[in-house]
Amino acid sequence: MSRGKVAHESARARLARHLRGERALRGLSQEALADLALLHRTYVGSIERCERNVSLDNVERLARALNVDIADLLAAD
Amino acid sequence: MSRGKVAHESARARLARHLRGERALRGLSQEALADLALLHRTYVGSIERCERNVSLDNVERLARALNVDIADLLAAD
Repeated sequence: MSRGKVAHESARARLARHLRGERALRGLSQEALADLALLHRTYVGSIERCERNVSLDNVERLARALNVDIADLLAAD
Repeated sequence: MSRGKVAHESARARLARHLRGERALRGLSQEALADLALLHRTYVGSIERCERNVSLDNVERLARALNVDIADLLAAD
């Protein structure tokens, strides 16, 4: 396993950044992503504002909805 | 962002696998890791049994306690 340097960006900020990026790549609104992930339509917005301490299962739902690996949604880059 | 292939191992199973691996590398008990991460001493055990839908903030605490990047705790490999 790579001895990944510990980034200073919080996990919440990383998830928010990657969700915004993946949505932009696909032209998806927050509501559309929430629908795809079977989450409440305002849920994605609260994640992207770092207001929500998301559960692992819900991060996994979002990753599946976007068809990316869950680790990609928390990657340092 | 790498188009990470979507693995079939659940996120909970991945986290459990990586926690066990990182603890073994350091000779840490579940209780010792829970103490380092300021979590209840039985918490790590329940994560490693995939019984707990862990919050992102707590996964981040565990990553910091182990001094690894959070994405490493959810990596496919």
